[in-house]
Amino acid sequence: MELLLTYDVSTIDPPGRNRLRRVAKLCEGYGMRVQKSVFEIVCSDADLLVLLDKVQRIIDHDQDSIRIYRVPKGSLRDVKTLGTAAPLPHDDALIL
Amino acid sequence: MELLLTYDVSTIDPPGRNRLRRVAKLCEGYGMRVQKSVFEIVCSDADLLVLLDKVQRIIDHDQDSIRIYRVPKGSLRDVKTLGTAAPLPHDDALIL
Repeated sequence: MELLLTYDVSTIDPPGRNRLRRVAKLCEGYGMRVQKSVFEIVCSDADLLVLLDKVQRIIDHDQDSIRIYRVPKGSLRDVKTLGTAAPLPHDDALIL
Repeated sequence: MELLLTYDVSTIDPPGRNRLRRVAKLCEGYGMRVQKSVFEIVCSDADLLVLLDKVQRIIDHDQDSIRIYRVPKGSLRDVKTLGTAAPLPHDDALIL
């Protein structure tokens, strides 16, 4: 499945920056960081359960906001971008 | 249609904060700001063209990143949330 995970965390203080860094590292195991706090994820149902469990252990539930949208296959490639953003390949053949 | 618009802009300097404020004000005319830089938008094809045109005039194309994902109807309501996030009603009947 394809997912969009958005993470709103205050990065003014070091603990917030540290949480964002840990969530980013986790999400990058399943996809790509496309903006400072937006991650495109491609994973299985089982992976999602593991991911959710790990994210829950990292975030501050009283301060941070996580939203996870399930999108149809192909949506991540069909994104419309403006400015410096660009669509990123998730499943293109690896060219060596 | 339902859209997710994510905006990555440096808010360290006042011009960046000002651009984010202007994009937020614009997007709030079509939906809701659900995180600092994530907007859930419900609009028509025609509205989207107008929105894109206005956004392009606000952002700094060399610094800012905008991503717009089209999601199936109902996706915005079906969002999975953690922490302080909560699903928001876009089309619930108004209860007075």
